[in-house]
Amino acid sequence: NKQSKKDYSFSNRGKTLEDEINETNEFYLDRNIAVIHKKPVPIQIVNVEYPSRSAAVIREAYFKTPSTTDYNGVWKGYHIDFEAKETENPTSFPLKNIHPHQVEHMKSVILQKGIAFLIIRFSSADKYYAVPYSMLEEKWKRMLQGGRKSIPLKEFEQEAIEINTGYSPRINYLEAVEQMLGK
Amino acid sequence: NKQSKKDYSFSNRGKTLEDEINETNEFYLDRNIAVIHKKPVPIQIVNVEYPSRSAAVIREAYFKTPSTTDYNGVWKGYHIDFEAKETENPTSFPLKNIHPHQVEHMKSVILQKGIAFLIIRFSSADKYYAVPYSMLEEKWKRMLQGGRKSIPLKEFEQEAIEINTGYSPRINYLEAVEQMLGK
Ligand SMILES: [Mg+2]
Ligand SMILES: [Mg+2]
Repeated sequence: NKQSKKDYSFSNRGKTLEDEINETNEFYLDRNIAVIHKKPVPIQIVNVEYPSRSAAVIREAYFKTPSTTDYNGVWKGYHIDFEAKETENPTSFPLKNIHPHQVEHMKSVILQKGIAFLIIRFSSADKYYAVPYSMLEEKWKRMLQGGRKSIPLKEFEQEAIEINTGYSPRINYLEAVEQMLGK
Repeated sequence: NKQSKKDYSFSNRGKTLEDEINETNEFYLDRNIAVIHKKPVPIQIVNVEYPSRSAAVIREAYFKTPSTTDYNGVWKGYHIDFEAKETENPTSFPLKNIHPHQVEHMKSVILQKGIAFLIIRFSSADKYYAVPYSMLEEKWKRMLQGGRKSIPLKEFEQEAIEINTGYSPRINYLEAVEQMLGK
């Protein structure tokens, strides 16, 4: 019933956005709704040990700057590609959280007729938004032209698509993608 | 001219299939033909050092079994998903080189109307084939039913699509995908 859903949603607050998206993706995968995965973190491996009779151990490696987004996959024939970020900032999302080559990547995806967007969580307000690439591009250009370096929450409310949360799926972002396509 | 292309192709023989596909993907990306990337190798990170004033160092990590394929992306609105393998075996491709969950993953991609296939290189013959998921599924089922545990080269010649190689792009596998779609 509705009450228990609400309770569970509260208990979910300790989860990271990544956990929530992974759970949602499992939900989609189990029900043949979509096949969307998080890409592994890119690593530069420098040194590996091969002990006899046991698994290879990486002994020196470094994190690399990601050149693409974190999630991609396929849904009803559409190529889905997105980056997910959460912010503690209550009033705006700082664009420094997105790498320029990620914006470039999303632009290339759009050129190939894929669907590219951001999922942004405002943690203090517990609000989730899907930001179509077209909206990101506009704000990114504004920044490059000397304008503000963040997207205010008010612009999310007016121009992005709010994502409904629940028990299962946790954040039904494909509903928001459907709205994007309908526009 | 044609001669210099041939020479370069010969000098490419020391490259791994992964190098060749990465080069081809760069070619596609630079010309806005397609956006296809290799996924990072999945790693289980156990221990990370954070030295002051320098980058974090991973000091203990292990390779994880991949649950999906190595490459995916988008091309002309199609979701592209494939696994690449090379074999030194001159007469057949051993199916033990493919993980069961990779076959599962490819099946899920097909259900979502993505394009899933293998790229197989027979290193000794210097031949490259694109294997549509439908062909893989047939051979996989044959194995599960007690039949042979490999795909003979002869079946590649008859049922798979040979990939043309050249200087640039090195292996034009999207041409083979176009043929798959035409069938
Ligand atoms: Mg990221
Ligand atoms: Mg592999």
